Amino acid sequence: MSDPIQTLAIVGAGMIGASWAALASALGVAVRAYDPNAEAEARFLSQVERARAQLAELGLTGTGNVSFFSSLAEALEGAGFVQENGPENEAVKRKLLAKIDALLPLDAIIASSTSALVRSSIVGDCARPGRIIVAHPFNPPHLVPLVEIVGADPDVVTRAADFYRALGRRPVVLNREMPGHIANRLASALYREAVHLVEQGVASVADIDAALCNGPGLRWALMGPHMTYHLGGGEGGIAGYLAHLGPSQVRRWESLGNPSLDAEVQAKIVAGVAEEAAGRSIAELEARRDEGLLALLKTRTLVSD
Amino acid sequence: MSDPIQTLAIVGAGMIGASWAALASALGVAVRAYDPNAEAEARFLSQVERARAQLAELGLTGTGNVSFFSSLAEALEGAGFVQENGPENEAVKRKLLAKIDALLPLDAIIASSTSALVRSSIVGDCARPGRIIVAHPFNPPHLVPLVEIVGADPDVVTRAADFYRALGRRPVVLNREMPGHIANRLASALYREAVHLVEQGVASVADIDAALCNGPGLRWALMGPHMTYHLGGGEGGIAGYLAHLGPSQVRRWESLGNPSLDAEVQAKIVAGVAEEAAGRSIAELEARRDEGLLALLKTRTLVSD
Repeated sequence: MSDPIQTLAIVGAGMIGASWAALASALGVAVRAYDPNAEAEARFLSQVERARAQLAELGLTGTGNVSFFSSLAEALEGAGFVQENGPENEAVKRKLLAKIDALLPLDAIIASSTSALVRSSIVGDCARPGRIIVAHPFNPPHLVPLVEIVGADPDVVTRAADFYRALGRRPVVLNREMPGHIANRLASALYREAVHLVEQGVASVADIDAALCNGPGLRWALMGPHMTYHLGGGEGGIAGYLAHLGPSQVRRWESLGNPSLDAEVQAKIVAGVAEEAAGRSIAELEARRDEGLLALLKTRTLVSD
Repeated sequence: MSDPIQTLAIVGAGMIGASWAALASALGVAVRAYDPNAEAEARFLSQVERARAQLAELGLTGTGNVSFFSSLAEALEGAGFVQENGPENEAVKRKLLAKIDALLPLDAIIASSTSALVRSSIVGDCARPGRIIVAHPFNPPHLVPLVEIVGADPDVVTRAADFYRALGRRPVVLNREMPGHIANRLASALYREAVHLVEQGVASVADIDAALCNGPGLRWALMGPHMTYHLGGGEGGIAGYLAHLGPSQVRRWESLGNPSLDAEVQAKIVAGVAEEAAGRSIAELEARRDEGLLALLKTRTLVSD
């Protein structure tokens, strides 16, 4: 067991960076944030404050110091862990990670929040790629516990997972890299069928959304799909489910749609979401989502814990 | 607006039937249950009691009378609404629905809980098919709010949706029938990719499950996929999301897996679920799921409400 990490550097101080910063600070970790745009500071600090107020409702009231720098080297001083949240552009990230790698002593871990890129495509310019991992959070990272980790050095992965656990996250370690990691692939698979149902006019956008969050989505806040079918299999559990209903699951897979996202379908979705939003702004809906997440996190007990 | 329904007949008194019965009773509706197996009565009544205790925690303490009959005609006496929960067998259901249809006055609505069959395949032997709908709940129906409705007569569909709303459910009306309705199609699409990730050894079954319920599943307890991307699209909302990230969503769809559920994959899933269950019985896991659902339902505020 290595020493706990005292200082986290945040590289890229947008929404995701501010969310990471608030979480670390509320757990007593000092945060040094960097953004090339010095004007990002005010917005960053106010986003950190808003997120910290939410974390206080969950009882997380640590006071790790949060500071902002427009020099990368300054932000990295003394950091044992770096969370990079730069633009989702392969060339930009390769260069940025190589720069961070060159500036830091070897025992520091460098984690990229990337959702769209795979680890092997962004570590190629680093002199010491073994200490570089992907650690992909879910929005907003200070509330949603999942962190998906992809690394090459098992010791680095273990230390990183320990750090995220200390931040109250639930790290999931991938055995090998996969575009979209795990959760966004599951979400994308579901979304393809949601778009298919819109395209086919089976129900309104609002009703398709309601079908998820009043049905399987509610259960999936407590357990994953395999456990869900384990409990749906009666006394035989998952083995009984697969033996009796596996063939109908495969037939269902064959019947799923393969929609396009052409202009017509996009227009249907945009109009449907506008109807569902019923005049509420994105900021209002986000505030409601965060309130809802806070309420769930206060009471939630996972089936497998 | 027609008169509120006073008496619900439950045809098929297994788990789903007991769950419907408990819900209706707790909302003050009298229940007359039928099962061809007279020995089903004791188990049915004890399941109703257990579900009613859970509903009492949600403040639903009505006392609609619950009685059991092993004669279908007796159970249907005076029923304004029938919820059929027989075996998922097309021939059996066709016959059963025709029998119920022949026994009841025309103003009563007959709803089938079927998940696997489509409405047109089961109403063919009924003299008055217009009053027959599919009303598919999610397990367990007394806790999970979704009811997916497929009907032919708009007036019948409206009256049925009103009835389910009075039972605290969230009816979603399909514009046309679709195998698997909406929610199970979404679940099936997601499960295909979950099986693919197991097949490819990307992570353990337990970690794939954890990735869902600590990530997108948590958000999907509050909102559906379209609203989720609306909030993930930044200031441009869903229109911005589709314009900027639509093409990468389509590329992701093209990269999704098409696994088989052969013996080897089934064995991997069964072993992985056993590891995740860590010795806990299905009854223990179900109790934990129900506790978790109750806690969520007490605090949950949907983003779109």
